Amino acid sequence: MAELTGNLLVAQSGGPTCAINASIAGVITEAGKHECIEEIYGGLNGILGILNEELIDLNDEKRRAIEGLKYTPAAALGTCRYKIDFKKKPEKAAKDMDRLFEVFQAHNIRYFFYAGGNDSQDTSHKIHEEAVRRGWDMRVIGVPKTIDNDLPHTDHCPGYGSVIKYNSTTVMEVGFDVSSMATDDGSCCIIEVMGRAAGWITAGTVLAKRGDPAAPPHIILLPEIPFEEDRFIARVKEVIDAHKYCVVVVGEGLKNPQGEEIGADKSRLDAFGHAVLAGAAEKLKEIVQGRLNTKTRTVLLGYAQRAAAHCASLTDVNTAFACGEAAVRAAASGKSGFMVKIVRQTSAEGAVTFGTDIHPLAEIANVEHFLPRDWIAEDGFLPNEKFVAYAKPLIEGEVRPPSEGGLPKYIVLEKNRVEKKLAPRS
Amino acid sequence: MAELTGNLLVAQSGGPTCAINASIAGVITEAGKHECIEEIYGGLNGILGILNEELIDLNDEKRRAIEGLKYTPAAALGTCRYKIDFKKKPEKAAKDMDRLFEVFQAHNIRYFFYAGGNDSQDTSHKIHEEAVRRGWDMRVIGVPKTIDNDLPHTDHCPGYGSVIKYNSTTVMEVGFDVSSMATDDGSCCIIEVMGRAAGWITAGTVLAKRGDPAAPPHIILLPEIPFEEDRFIARVKEVIDAHKYCVVVVGEGLKNPQGEEIGADKSRLDAFGHAVLAGAAEKLKEIVQGRLNTKTRTVLLGYAQRAAAHCASLTDVNTAFACGEAAVRAAASGKSGFMVKIVRQTSAEGAVTFGTDIHPLAEIANVEHFLPRDWIAEDGFLPNEKFVAYAKPLIEGEVRPPSEGGLPKYIVLEKNRVEKKLAPRS
Repeated sequence: MAELTGNLLVAQSGGPTCAINASIAGVITEAGKHECIEEIYGGLNGILGILNEELIDLNDEKRRAIEGLKYTPAAALGTCRYKIDFKKKPEKAAKDMDRLFEVFQAHNIRYFFYAGGNDSQDTSHKIHEEAVRRGWDMRVIGVPKTIDNDLPHTDHCPGYGSVIKYNSTTVMEVGFDVSSMATDDGSCCIIEVMGRAAGWITAGTVLAKRGDPAAPPHIILLPEIPFEEDRFIARVKEVIDAHKYCVVVVGEGLKNPQGEEIGADKSRLDAFGHAVLAGAAEKLKEIVQGRLNTKTRTVLLGYAQRAAAHCASLTDVNTAFACGEAAVRAAASGKSGFMVKIVRQTSAEGAVTFGTDIHPLAEIANVEHFLPRDWIAEDGFLPNEKFVAYAKPLIEGEVRPPSEGGLPKYIVLEKNRVEKKLAPRS
Repeated sequence: MAELTGNLLVAQSGGPTCAINASIAGVITEAGKHECIEEIYGGLNGILGILNEELIDLNDEKRRAIEGLKYTPAAALGTCRYKIDFKKKPEKAAKDMDRLFEVFQAHNIRYFFYAGGNDSQDTSHKIHEEAVRRGWDMRVIGVPKTIDNDLPHTDHCPGYGSVIKYNSTTVMEVGFDVSSMATDDGSCCIIEVMGRAAGWITAGTVLAKRGDPAAPPHIILLPEIPFEEDRFIARVKEVIDAHKYCVVVVGEGLKNPQGEEIGADKSRLDAFGHAVLAGAAEKLKEIVQGRLNTKTRTVLLGYAQRAAAHCASLTDVNTAFACGEAAVRAAASGKSGFMVKIVRQTSAEGAVTFGTDIHPLAEIANVEHFLPRDWIAEDGFLPNEKFVAYAKPLIEGEVRPPSEGGLPKYIVLEKNRVEKKLAPRS
């Protein structure tokens, strides 16, 4: 393979996580070790910023800032939910693609890394194919990122370990709180977490039980299991009769047997045409209060759960960093059209570690990976020991961001712009 | 003052916090140093458990468990919202009071400590007065506890520093998240925090700004300032025009100019006759989406904020512990009918430390302490530098609970029961 010399461009896409910046730090750190890579640029707000030729010079950032990316939440380069949609808007998509390659060529981009989830891997795949078609020699590698943990072929997705660590910590703490208030009146607390179609995030809170069947959460409602009101209410009553309180975790995408999301606000769609979700917990609260007359409170963690870098998993952050490094190594060795994937290694003693490999983007783009049914208890109310064995290693280790005045001190990049070479996007 | 020898009873009341157990640890630790105190008992679920003669032997707990109370959230002894209400239910109240003194006398309780907020201090005050009236020589000291920070005469209340540390950390992290997604479309995130009448908790999130006017939170809606929709929407628009995103923090008790809570569900009342609140953030979301057509998400921290021991303030926990110690010292020295209060000491160099003193319960019971108007900016949308100077020292220092398998390892007491000596409560 002939060595390809040129510039690197890295960008972030989709919902932020508290580990995605660690992947960018991994890309930048590894890139510094390869002579074939000249400038290291970041695209602001993903594809959207690249279309507008908004690039920043990452070699111009302080070394301390690059280190700080490892523990800084959200997307330090900015992110977007912009989709190049050849199916629904073929003309606009073709025009966007032309513009992207004008930018790549104007800045001699030969290494392109895009960190994101399903939609973003699809974008990476299309860019790789276009590069081949246009004869622009550029290596494109997707970096996995999604708290939803629904990318296929990878053991898990960076960001997932941290979100379930934070959510489990929160569920455990709320459990202590509700338990300490439990008197004969009974009470219920419903905690809503993210996860549209796949129940990985919701399932992750089972770790808060630490293997104790009596400990909260008592019921976990996964979007994979159709919600049946009568069975649910019977179970809540059973738990309250036994423990005087009940902690329920619900995924935002919980569906009724007709397949309708119980918390969906159908009046609003996001850029990808998905319904904006909110209110599964509120809906369940209405049901519990209405049918059992039990005092019920809700917690809606929302964005807090994917941004909670103060409670991130060290395993997750280190693996995210390793994914960034692996992406650059793969590209430098001539690969293109792949996504980095995480591979689980289990020692003879049962110790779990994570390595990386690469997988063709063609087999990843737009494929959703769901929680296996046999990782869920037969009654559908809790993930089982197979899931626990899978998830437990992902939350190991604490990241301790530096603190100033009692609050974490996160990094903000200087974002010095690369001089534009093109006319503004028309 | 003649030395009074007998047993100690400590109990917890009202909403739990992540520092109230530290006060109990302070009581137990200090009690061990006074020979006049014989047995150390805990009342389960506050007054409610004492009425049922449900006492536990705290000398029977492991030393490690008592130490662990310092970093364990919620109320380790259990709590209640039971009120002895002489005004509304005089007969029941009189009967309850008789029963309490039967229990005190049966177990030779000569030292009684009750940790709680306004209602609980009122209960302590009534018990103190009854002890005097009945000629039962018992020292009653209230231990302050409330995330609401609305007890008078004390610099602040244990639990408050931790809740604003966690909330500020969360608002800062959510701010990073929303900011990194900000594109020309604009977006808004509304974070609802606790605080029924007083805006202390809501105001506390201003610390997330770290003095940067451009940083989130951009708008803080306090229950003390009547909500005016037009002015609010104008401000949100202004912020989004300037920054492409807007982070709003709202207290659950936000009221319209007619004095009605915008998020109140009037169909439900708690044991004290207050409306159960939920939905201020959801209501604001409707308004922002409806009038500005701006994508808006909500976060409802609920119980998570007062249970978040993984992000507790070391200053808060240490002060809570000191309050427990001070309560026992005051009682051992012969005082009764007082609440421990926290006193701020500022050195010539401006360093802030906290000491304790005592204050008559008669001047504390049922008095609510509100945020001073001159600690809030004139436009009502943010607390000002006077508030920041007050609140900043309260969040200093990190508590690091021990960790096991990636989750905090909290303490559960063994709760060995003290043998009952009375017939069941009729």
